[in-house]
Amino acid sequence: MEVQHRLRLLSRIIGMKGPIICRAIVTVTQRSGQSYTVGRHLPPTWRGGASAGWCRSFSDVSARTCTALVYRKHGDPPEVVQSENMELPLMGEKSVLVKMLAAPINPSDINMVQGTYAILPDLPAVGGNEGVGQVLEVGSQVTSLKPGDWVIPRDAGLGTWRTTAVFNEVSLAEVPRDIPLLAAATLGVNPCTAYRMLSDFEALKPGDSVIQNAANSGVGQAVIQIAAARGIHTINVVRDRPGVQQLSDRLLAMGASHVIKEETLRQPEMKDFFKKCPRPKLALNAVGGKSATELLRHLQGGGTMVTYGGMAKQPVTVPVSSLIFKDVKVRGFWVTQWKRDHAHDERALSEMLAQLAALIREGKLTAPACSEVGLQDFRGALDRAMQPYMSAKQILVM
Amino acid sequence: MEVQHRLRLLSRIIGMKGPIICRAIVTVTQRSGQSYTVGRHLPPTWRGGASAGWCRSFSDVSARTCTALVYRKHGDPPEVVQSENMELPLMGEKSVLVKMLAAPINPSDINMVQGTYAILPDLPAVGGNEGVGQVLEVGSQVTSLKPGDWVIPRDAGLGTWRTTAVFNEVSLAEVPRDIPLLAAATLGVNPCTAYRMLSDFEALKPGDSVIQNAANSGVGQAVIQIAAARGIHTINVVRDRPGVQQLSDRLLAMGASHVIKEETLRQPEMKDFFKKCPRPKLALNAVGGKSATELLRHLQGGGTMVTYGGMAKQPVTVPVSSLIFKDVKVRGFWVTQWKRDHAHDERALSEMLAQLAALIREGKLTAPACSEVGLQDFRGALDRAMQPYMSAKQILVM
Repeated sequence: MEVQHRLRLLSRIIGMKGPIICRAIVTVTQRSGQSYTVGRHLPPTWRGGASAGWCRSFSDVSARTCTALVYRKHGDPPEVVQSENMELPLMGEKSVLVKMLAAPINPSDINMVQGTYAILPDLPAVGGNEGVGQVLEVGSQVTSLKPGDWVIPRDAGLGTWRTTAVFNEVSLAEVPRDIPLLAAATLGVNPCTAYRMLSDFEALKPGDSVIQNAANSGVGQAVIQIAAARGIHTINVVRDRPGVQQLSDRLLAMGASHVIKEETLRQPEMKDFFKKCPRPKLALNAVGGKSATELLRHLQGGGTMVTYGGMAKQPVTVPVSSLIFKDVKVRGFWVTQWKRDHAHDERALSEMLAQLAALIREGKLTAPACSEVGLQDFRGALDRAMQPYMSAKQILVM
Repeated sequence: MEVQHRLRLLSRIIGMKGPIICRAIVTVTQRSGQSYTVGRHLPPTWRGGASAGWCRSFSDVSARTCTALVYRKHGDPPEVVQSENMELPLMGEKSVLVKMLAAPINPSDINMVQGTYAILPDLPAVGGNEGVGQVLEVGSQVTSLKPGDWVIPRDAGLGTWRTTAVFNEVSLAEVPRDIPLLAAATLGVNPCTAYRMLSDFEALKPGDSVIQNAANSGVGQAVIQIAAARGIHTINVVRDRPGVQQLSDRLLAMGASHVIKEETLRQPEMKDFFKKCPRPKLALNAVGGKSATELLRHLQGGGTMVTYGGMAKQPVTVPVSSLIFKDVKVRGFWVTQWKRDHAHDERALSEMLAQLAALIREGKLTAPACSEVGLQDFRGALDRAMQPYMSAKQILVM
């Protein structure tokens, strides 16, 4: 049994190490909701810190706690997510104690709670995959971070909706402290997704164009701004909705070259449109279904469509002739996989973060419209994050 | 008007050159079916040969003719294709007079006649895009070919269903004369398609596997044999049909690792199958629709599906999750485009042809089952080429 195994492991660690007597409290909670708390005095030979996350090496022997938004089963987020007090694991040599500052509620976080996402953490789990925190304390073997640094998660599944956390050094990346808090909190997923999709699939030069649907999404807005900074035209497709003119104006002010309603994309007038604007080499699809097929139809011969979302819950349908005679390439992108594939390529991630931070400093890349919400008001924030046509991203502030 | 323009051009050329008096006969036939024949005595200063295709430089001053299978409108091939006597264009400096030896009837030839193919020649047109011929005579500036050489077309649309033709040197590629005639006649499209698809999309090593539908097609058989020669396993999907066991035996004898009926591909037993056989890195799709989706489903994460045909006349449908979380790549391939893209890369084509010829000599690559048919019996051959489940390719022999 998982609990007994962990307890055996803990006993072995405690038996082997450490002169400091501390109270090791391990709260292991199973899917059933049962909770096991184990208290034990460590023997005097223990020197602490080898087993990341399980034991603490600092002198404050009382267990530290945090508040976290936890879900113990999958379901409707406002119902299954609850605020809980949790004891933090003890610090290890490679541990980093982080005070979370701000963490967004992204669509993928919602899908994870609902249990419909491609990767799901073991339950119970702390919600949230993105956010920024400040380092409070580091383990003895931590070399890349120091107290005061700002950090973001390197991978999905860390659980960022909490006040404090103990993470392993390798799961964190430093971000500069001179960018706005909300920009840092929303840097790790959407701008990184936009940056990679604009960089890794087609060699785009100034004057080339890119077409995207869901142009008002977090990724969509980052695509508009990063492309504009590189001199690349964006053709931004939005669904018709109340206030579509204001939305269009906002995207144009942000650097969008063109904003087009989805219905217009099917009209013959698009032929005239492409007399003035080069056909896109790259299409970015977060919708699927008919919307994706329309993007494909306007793509330049030899161009690539990259799918990073499927809001319409319909597959991507590709005419055989587009593949054979137009040589269109149909690909997918998942920033989490990219980060995993580049886990040992420190430079790839840090270079991207540095370039994005530079754009932020220059005012060329701003965080999407955000609503800051105190952690305690999470239920309303979850509710709002699930509304259609929500233009403001909900950000939990700790 | 096109005809008048050509006549003006001809007069100008004739006026500029040539001491030899010859009769230049130009038959220009328009879409309307009207035919213009122009006879003119060339002035005595003409030395011949500058305008490829229009004037003849050899001493035989009588116009040479050939028999060709011509279609003057699109429609049902056995109805619209007819045998005609045509006058050959005169030889130019870069012209090559070719006696055609054998030319297959491929599905794409049928679609061209029907008017449903992606590229269509101006009408009237000579049918056929593939075949082998022997060089009879070359223009004064031809350097790569000499009389006696065997040649195949470098591009689609040359019109190979004919007894003799005058082609430009750049539209021909030499093939070795020590391979069987039928292998040479069917070398340029299907084996080249198979070769490129196995080479250009995934880095396959011995032990890797490839899955394909339409495994009994010309390309399918070439894929089986080229893959077997490289130590790559093939999982060959065929539709259930009368005599499927004999078909399966034939493909296995040819080097197929596995032959699977399309229905089986949807069964849970495939899970056990993939315990013994590595999941394919590459899927080759000539069908589309559900068959393509099934191939995709069994593809290895990060693998590629290449579509080169759409026999089911249904698009390729790709689940969003396969793109994002499995990183499958969906591509297309058209050997005609490859040849055009590599028109100035002499080595790329000749290297491929040499490697394919080597496999043929070693008995590792054989032409698909063929029925040789005299050119005059073309109507029956066209009929048979359009039957479903036809295992024998119709080859016109001149």
